[in-house]
Amino acid sequence: MTRLKLGMVGGGQGAFIGAVHRIASRIDGRFELVAGALSSDPDRAAASAAELGIASSRSYASYEDMATAEAARPDGIDAVAIVTPNHMHAGPSAAFLNAGIHVICDKPLAASNEEADAIKAAAETSKARFFLTHNYTGYPLIRQARAMVARSDLGQIRLVQAEYAQDWLTEPLEQDGHKQAGWRTDPTRSGAGAIGDIGTHAFNLANFVTGQKVQVLSADLQSFGAGRKVDDNAHILLRYEGGARGMLWASQVAVGCENGLRLRIYGDKGGLEWAQENPNHMSYTRFGEPKQILTRGGAGTGPDWTRIPPGHPEGYLEGFATLYNDIADVISSGTDNALIPNLQDGLDGMWFIAAAQSSSANDGAWVGR
Amino acid sequence: MTRLKLGMVGGGQGAFIGAVHRIASRIDGRFELVAGALSSDPDRAAASAAELGIASSRSYASYEDMATAEAARPDGIDAVAIVTPNHMHAGPSAAFLNAGIHVICDKPLAASNEEADAIKAAAETSKARFFLTHNYTGYPLIRQARAMVARSDLGQIRLVQAEYAQDWLTEPLEQDGHKQAGWRTDPTRSGAGAIGDIGTHAFNLANFVTGQKVQVLSADLQSFGAGRKVDDNAHILLRYEGGARGMLWASQVAVGCENGLRLRIYGDKGGLEWAQENPNHMSYTRFGEPKQILTRGGAGTGPDWTRIPPGHPEGYLEGFATLYNDIADVISSGTDNALIPNLQDGLDGMWFIAAAQSSSANDGAWVGR
Amino acid sequence: MTRLKLGMVGGGQGAFIGAVHRIASRIDGRFELVAGALSSDPDRAAASAAELGIASSRSYASYEDMATAEAARPDGIDAVAIVTPNHMHAGPSAAFLNAGIHVICDKPLAASNEEADAIKAAAETSKARFFLTHNYTGYPLIRQARAMVARSDLGQIRLVQAEYAQDWLTEPLEQDGHKQAGWRTDPTRSGAGAIGDIGTHAFNLANFVTGQKVQVLSADLQSFGAGRKVDDNAHILLRYEGGARGMLWASQVAVGCENGLRLRIYGDKGGLEWAQENPNHMSYTRFGEPKQILTRGGAGTGPDWTRIPPGHPEGYLEGFATLYNDIADVISSGTDNALIPNLQDGLDGMWFIAAAQSSSANDGAWVGR
Amino acid sequence: MTRLKLGMVGGGQGAFIGAVHRIASRIDGRFELVAGALSSDPDRAAASAAELGIASSRSYASYEDMATAEAARPDGIDAVAIVTPNHMHAGPSAAFLNAGIHVICDKPLAASNEEADAIKAAAETSKARFFLTHNYTGYPLIRQARAMVARSDLGQIRLVQAEYAQDWLTEPLEQDGHKQAGWRTDPTRSGAGAIGDIGTHAFNLANFVTGQKVQVLSADLQSFGAGRKVDDNAHILLRYEGGARGMLWASQVAVGCENGLRLRIYGDKGGLEWAQENPNHMSYTRFGEPKQILTRGGAGTGPDWTRIPPGHPEGYLEGFATLYNDIADVISSGTDNALIPNLQDGLDGMWFIAAAQSSSANDGAWVGR
Repeated sequence: MTRLKLGMVGGGQGAFIGAVHRIASRIDGRFELVAGALSSDPDRAAASAAELGIASSRSYASYEDMATAEAARPDGIDAVAIVTPNHMHAGPSAAFLNAGIHVICDKPLAASNEEADAIKAAAETSKARFFLTHNYTGYPLIRQARAMVARSDLGQIRLVQAEYAQDWLTEPLEQDGHKQAGWRTDPTRSGAGAIGDIGTHAFNLANFVTGQKVQVLSADLQSFGAGRKVDDNAHILLRYEGGARGMLWASQVAVGCENGLRLRIYGDKGGLEWAQENPNHMSYTRFGEPKQILTRGGAGTGPDWTRIPPGHPEGYLEGFATLYNDIADVISSGTDNALIPNLQDGLDGMWFIAAAQSSSANDGAWVGR
Repeated sequence: MTRLKLGMVGGGQGAFIGAVHRIASRIDGRFELVAGALSSDPDRAAASAAELGIASSRSYASYEDMATAEAARPDGIDAVAIVTPNHMHAGPSAAFLNAGIHVICDKPLAASNEEADAIKAAAETSKARFFLTHNYTGYPLIRQARAMVARSDLGQIRLVQAEYAQDWLTEPLEQDGHKQAGWRTDPTRSGAGAIGDIGTHAFNLANFVTGQKVQVLSADLQSFGAGRKVDDNAHILLRYEGGARGMLWASQVAVGCENGLRLRIYGDKGGLEWAQENPNHMSYTRFGEPKQILTRGGAGTGPDWTRIPPGHPEGYLEGFATLYNDIADVISSGTDNALIPNLQDGLDGMWFIAAAQSSSANDGAWVGR
Repeated sequence: MTRLKLGMVGGGQGAFIGAVHRIASRIDGRFELVAGALSSDPDRAAASAAELGIASSRSYASYEDMATAEAARPDGIDAVAIVTPNHMHAGPSAAFLNAGIHVICDKPLAASNEEADAIKAAAETSKARFFLTHNYTGYPLIRQARAMVARSDLGQIRLVQAEYAQDWLTEPLEQDGHKQAGWRTDPTRSGAGAIGDIGTHAFNLANFVTGQKVQVLSADLQSFGAGRKVDDNAHILLRYEGGARGMLWASQVAVGCENGLRLRIYGDKGGLEWAQENPNHMSYTRFGEPKQILTRGGAGTGPDWTRIPPGHPEGYLEGFATLYNDIADVISSGTDNALIPNLQDGLDGMWFIAAAQSSSANDGAWVGR
Repeated sequence: MTRLKLGMVGGGQGAFIGAVHRIASRIDGRFELVAGALSSDPDRAAASAAELGIASSRSYASYEDMATAEAARPDGIDAVAIVTPNHMHAGPSAAFLNAGIHVICDKPLAASNEEADAIKAAAETSKARFFLTHNYTGYPLIRQARAMVARSDLGQIRLVQAEYAQDWLTEPLEQDGHKQAGWRTDPTRSGAGAIGDIGTHAFNLANFVTGQKVQVLSADLQSFGAGRKVDDNAHILLRYEGGARGMLWASQVAVGCENGLRLRIYGDKGGLEWAQENPNHMSYTRFGEPKQILTRGGAGTGPDWTRIPPGHPEGYLEGFATLYNDIADVISSGTDNALIPNLQDGLDGMWFIAAAQSSSANDGAWVGR
């Protein structure tokens, strides 16, 4: 087994999601981090690289330099993880795609439709692949749910209740110099508030599990935080192409909620309920029968996307790692895997953001594709 | 202690909610059931009365006879419970109010606005009182929640997430001669589907706890059951007069949900979460502190609306009984009690039903009062 | 339907369990409380009777007077509820049994074996019946569990894990004049501490569900409360006649536990888990299959011992009321009902208390019957 | 940052815990696996090494060869993970300790006291360290609990209720050639059944959190599986040196339990409850106050042993990885860390196993140290 060579753009000291990508890439031992443009601040970039054991010769001052140099090396990176704020996804994505290097990009796709288009254009002309880390799709029971819907265990899907509730922006943290709150509530860097940061996850997850796309939506967005420039709460009604109706709630001001991503799906034959904070259990009811508690890897589940026996909880990092593991398979084998979120998922998320903003600005008018 | 004399309209053999009212009226020993017009079918009425120990002389063939006769007796009933289908609330309510007998009416207020107006007119000219059994307000922790909101434990209320999910109408039960499904899905007898039968409960409960009224709403109603003539699922966005935003989901086709009434309320200082199926626990979080689990009658709660110590679960019937107990106090003492749902709550519920139907028919347009 | 006439011994103002019996007797409308010797304090007895609507002519100064007078009346009571402290069970029980009046006695049977023997002697010569309110057997899902074990859904029973944990005696409340703590920690009035007050409930419940009796036990009792004269924590190992092994934990000093009665039973084919604080759910696993959540009255359960549909929680009082309802059936019909705890259950409980005390005093030696 | 060089003994294809150690060693990027004696079967050893990217020159046919060769290399391993069945811990441990290489050994310490003594002897004369992977101590909330007990948040500890329930040996799996069941139920390879395999974890965890050692115990062991040669269920009473009393239940035949390690600790001021299957939540009650739900990294917790924010669940592998991370710190810095289980913990576990077996063989007699 040879490890794939991984680079990283962003993720220097003080960042959040970069460290998550690094752990996720290590868990199954398929990647080795060997290069990076870890920060736009050169000192921080160098210090971060040293801390991570990246050779100084492969710690770059800019992603452009990195793309050029790594593409030119015989031992250059196979893939790059892009873990910068949203408005900094497009530049690096295009640069590496153009250099023929696979891109693993954090979500949402971009901070604007123009940026999203730029990524799309680069992806269409590159032989390299583009992956989007909607990491919650890597949870074993989410994949289980998708398989169950696909094989009609729930019958015709009628209802999709998705929610993602947090409370960390209850107070205007961005005014206290909080780094994460800063860029995530800055429209120029994030492009949107709760709907982009967490709403796209809920939206993507519902699509992933149901296999259905949303046709139209009606949204009521709100900023509760004093002086906040983006939405911190979103109430959205959805209609799916297959006839299902849905609700999506995304909030960063729901006091007492930590990372409350929750999905409930009901068809005419069965229902499923899953919550991210206890991801190793999912309830499943066949109409007229007792509710069952399916456990990750437990009786009645499979095939398996898990590492350890039921009862030994896997968590957020393992779900994330499963994406990295799948990506390694795809890169190594050249085959496809429909379970890995891709450019189209990113574009769907961009539509979701824009449609929600537009609907809300128009008094909740239904907005289609 | 003398027991109040209670009559009942509806609730004969085969009915559901009548038996609930009877148990609720007995639990605290404040009422004695002595008269009834238990069924429009004379044989059933007589048999039901005999079964319940009502003297045959006080088992009436019609509510009109009963109102007249009981008003004329020196030992006539103090109050009557009206537990008929929705379209049969107005007639008896008006008759007993006009006869000076207090009315305890099941919800929703009526099947049409005309009927609701008739009740209102009768109530306005009667010295007798009108009570509406939105029984979930009788749960001790719901009253605890209301008190906490009122004393600003949650700060300024921002979000109201209410839901009431069942699955008993997943299949078109009304086509199989199912009595409850029959009238509850018949627009002429019920006036509405899920929004009336359970949506009004969720709507009322949110108002009760927050002390805020809804200003406008936007609704997406749907009938999933084959051939169903009323809504069996409702997705509704709400805006409260105090600035809060809300979502309300009512469904009778959510497979695996039994009686999933759930209320979550978030302010800028705290959050509360409660679910009817485990009503003796409520989670409460002050922003930045660990979540607390408040228990009925337990530490940090009170004053008390409960009978037995924490850990000895009270349920649906005790919550219902608390309304009856409070009503007995009000009748006996002539004082008021703002905790008991009344005519205005019934009218608010009628607005909710009409507004949701109108909004849904108009593509989700916001509808105000 | 005619109501049975009920008397009560004990249960005056300030008592706890008397009020519970009264509510339980009212819920299904099968009893009417018409007589009482509610307190050994004559003033309190009279005041309590008045409050409860008992005619002053049937409020007695002593249980002896009451037994004599009620037996002599043509409209005398059918049954008496004995809700005094443990050491006051035997006198009234014998008096009413001797008078031919059915006895509904609170648990445990008595404070001493001598008292228990006196009850036994009276019961053996009386045509009246003796019922013991191990009320937790009235929970619908406990009866469901018993039926499942009886029909071998769990296979051969291997393990019984019973516990009953409270925290109300964490501090030496009995030294502050707390009435309930006073008699319950006084060996002359209670006969035992946690093992008698709550341990017997757990013991009885395990026997009820498994249909097996304990053959031998080994106990480690402890008094943690400063100056406490009875056990407030019991750790007990059990061996059942059918080969099962068990653990029983009873505690009144487990901080954070309100009324944590919990039963887990495992056989070679299946397992059941139930907890009293959320009594409307029980988990059931067939070996090798997903865990199921059985709900009171829900799919996969029955026959029914419940009043309202699944999802509408019933609680402690309804379970208690089911005993009263069953007792009413037995008294009215003269038939038997093996589901109602009786004298033998009381004697088994007395053995349990004595064996636990003896074992603990002998360094945990196994004690048999 | 330089990675420590890690070797492994055992853990070839088909093994279970070896893969867990490898993931745990990778998560925080502190180790690199470079050498192994992965199987006693040479072909399997070579194939396993190749699969893991270990150079064939460092894939050894025996642990003796490996210890000698690696000690001699300038770039030899810093530490070795020993992940063989219990009876194969002593040989490799002694060999590597004697070679001056740090040992990370899976639990329990050994299959016999003689083997344990051999490890002890080697450790006492080696400058290298010995670590034992009682991995559950790595869970952040377990460390939180330990800190809370140490700072007297719970007051004087009174009660320790520990349990570890599984169901995978409900049927005699060892007779079907199941590899894990095979050695784990073979007394010569495992030394004990449930008490060794999982009971030692529960025992260790209780000691870890309370900071108290068990003084005496009384045990009732049982083999329910047909033809099983070791215990598959253990019921144990404990008395702690500090005056606390405890119960410990370990079972591999509790149908419906996956990996039910659970710890409940009660003092005279507070109580804690934690369950491994949902390890990111712990309930904490101060006597007389509402129960709190502490979350990993959430409000009211810390200092931190976690990687990602509250609400993003960490699991079994992260807890395990925390031990590896701590071990890396200790090896790198030469300092100590009382949080890492060590030889003494292993010896305590051996006492626990022997005492439980002896007590059970002597009819539950209390056995001391």
